[in-house]
Amino acid sequence: MKLGIVGGGQLGRMLGLAGMPLGFQFRFLEPAADCPASRLGEMIRTPYDDMDGLERFAQDLSFATYEFENVPATTAQWLAERLTLAPSAKALEVSQDRIAEKSTFRNLGIPVQNFVGISSSADIDAALAKVPLPAVLKTRRLGYDGKGQRVLGKAGADAASMVRAAWEELGKVPCILESFVAFSAEVSMIAVRARRSGAHATISFYPLIQNEHRHGILWKSQAPAPCDTDGQLAQSARKYVQALMESMDYIGVIAVEFFVTSAGLIANEMAPRVHNSGHWTIDGAVTSQFENHLRAVGGLPLGSTECEGSSVMINLVGRAPITARVLEIPGAKLHLYGKASRAGRKLGHITLSGRDESRLAQQTAELERLVAWDV
Amino acid sequence: MKLGIVGGGQLGRMLGLAGMPLGFQFRFLEPAADCPASRLGEMIRTPYDDMDGLERFAQDLSFATYEFENVPATTAQWLAERLTLAPSAKALEVSQDRIAEKSTFRNLGIPVQNFVGISSSADIDAALAKVPLPAVLKTRRLGYDGKGQRVLGKAGADAASMVRAAWEELGKVPCILESFVAFSAEVSMIAVRARRSGAHATISFYPLIQNEHRHGILWKSQAPAPCDTDGQLAQSARKYVQALMESMDYIGVIAVEFFVTSAGLIANEMAPRVHNSGHWTIDGAVTSQFENHLRAVGGLPLGSTECEGSSVMINLVGRAPITARVLEIPGAKLHLYGKASRAGRKLGHITLSGRDESRLAQQTAELERLVAWDV
Repeated sequence: MKLGIVGGGQLGRMLGLAGMPLGFQFRFLEPAADCPASRLGEMIRTPYDDMDGLERFAQDLSFATYEFENVPATTAQWLAERLTLAPSAKALEVSQDRIAEKSTFRNLGIPVQNFVGISSSADIDAALAKVPLPAVLKTRRLGYDGKGQRVLGKAGADAASMVRAAWEELGKVPCILESFVAFSAEVSMIAVRARRSGAHATISFYPLIQNEHRHGILWKSQAPAPCDTDGQLAQSARKYVQALMESMDYIGVIAVEFFVTSAGLIANEMAPRVHNSGHWTIDGAVTSQFENHLRAVGGLPLGSTECEGSSVMINLVGRAPITARVLEIPGAKLHLYGKASRAGRKLGHITLSGRDESRLAQQTAELERLVAWDV
Repeated sequence: MKLGIVGGGQLGRMLGLAGMPLGFQFRFLEPAADCPASRLGEMIRTPYDDMDGLERFAQDLSFATYEFENVPATTAQWLAERLTLAPSAKALEVSQDRIAEKSTFRNLGIPVQNFVGISSSADIDAALAKVPLPAVLKTRRLGYDGKGQRVLGKAGADAASMVRAAWEELGKVPCILESFVAFSAEVSMIAVRARRSGAHATISFYPLIQNEHRHGILWKSQAPAPCDTDGQLAQSARKYVQALMESMDYIGVIAVEFFVTSAGLIANEMAPRVHNSGHWTIDGAVTSQFENHLRAVGGLPLGSTECEGSSVMINLVGRAPITARVLEIPGAKLHLYGKASRAGRKLGHITLSGRDESRLAQQTAELERLVAWDV
């Protein structure tokens, strides 16, 4: 089966590596000349909205997916009219706009913090009446890894001028003002939903994942989430993600990030694709998120999401440690993305898995000493 | 690190898939235009003994290995003089000639059946005095998957003419006559030996594997071997393989096949490379035989060979079942090699792994019903 993938970054590369053994062949649409997914399929090297490139990309394809959520809406629409695009253009649309995303959550009864849109400086006073500081101002679109946002602390009479200054710093683009959430942990739920011809859709969930960020970038993921001592958080997350997927008739892997608060989970954002916090599934689950995404998109049955013991993943950002040093840790599984070093760039990740919790903790500590970021 | 691989078949493909995440880049020497390893590295498409091709293959390489043991001796020698070839040309030489192989085993105290060489019809009478029928006549070189051999049952006065007829059928090439071994099972031991600069070599072993053949081709491998109820067979096999590797200062993965007899193990043959009976390690071991071979050849530390539970691998020969049917078995891991169907051809394999023995047995039975060979 030939599958088109919009984007040729590390997620495309790992989809390619997971799909080759299943007999998938790939075609990537990616403007960058030397991208992580090159080698793993045919490359169409044009901008994402180049009509001629899109024609060549879609030629003879029945199925396509994407590996990042900022696919232009017109591209997604064009593809959806010609082939089976999964996840759907609707899922992309929702995830591209923080207000559509949070509204979708709220309409489904998934807890979210208070939020309000700010499109012009005239909106600021009314916004503050609804969402007083402390709050976070974020661009409605195109934010990632902590980019495109400003944390605004408690303020008195000068709240409006603080918001105005932040909004100007963010380029006066449409923004969302979100109540600051005091959270004790960040978690994500990765799930996959598939439908085979003539069959009901089925959903599978991975264990709840606990995430730790540094400089706004994911540093470490652990599964199952240590903060979820009684499994209640995972149960809530599964319920919310199931409602979300069903409401959109979603097909493929989805990731939803939540804050853990004293009042339970608060949904932060969704990614309609395989997700960095699920990279440990390559080594720690029977079927990785990459393989299950391909199975879902390609109309194949889902694979088992069972895990043996726990897993820890550490990201490599900006620079990678010496390979031999990493591999000296006996169970360390190294995944490099074939990218040149550059400050702030995700170059790879390392996974540790096992049933022996004390050995895992000791190896994690060893690994954390080894990994230094350049951001 | 750029690594050269002589051969671009499925073993080269799986080495490539295992090596990309570790940062390896590959160059394959392979005459076939559309081989399973294409896409996974640079391809030099010339015969294995083409001097110009060899020059281009070796250009700027520090390390090379091979994925089949019938690399021409002159090619191996030429490469060994210019770069680090592992396993060594010596290991290739031994494995290419059944008499050198069995002599090496015997000299190390590894049990072998009686054997004798037959190079001309004049040798037959003396050979039968040393190795009476029942016996197996095999070509000394280039045999695989049951090809190039004749089983000769018990005979009386006509033994010499039976051997002569078989020898003529095999093309009158140098042969080996081996005593027929009454075995209760076939097993293989896969091990890996590595040396890092300035460090002692280290050896790691996978669990003993039990193999079942059909039409002379590997049908099923199971690890750990069910026939080894008390672990004594594995212990013997480790001792023999360790002696063999040390005697050759071997670097890389090796596979040694044994017959299980009432008198213990009898060594049958070795393969100086990753081996079909070890394909389950991709899914069933922390580090696969492919990754460990690359680590050894590249001078990196070995990865853990620990396994969670048991694994079963079934080969797909001549034709592959419908993908969706295979993937309906929740833990089934499908590995296709990207080859067109053809009778007798290895097209892929499927692995099942787990700690729940009864579920594994049930899923194996389901899988066996699904897989039909075309040979």
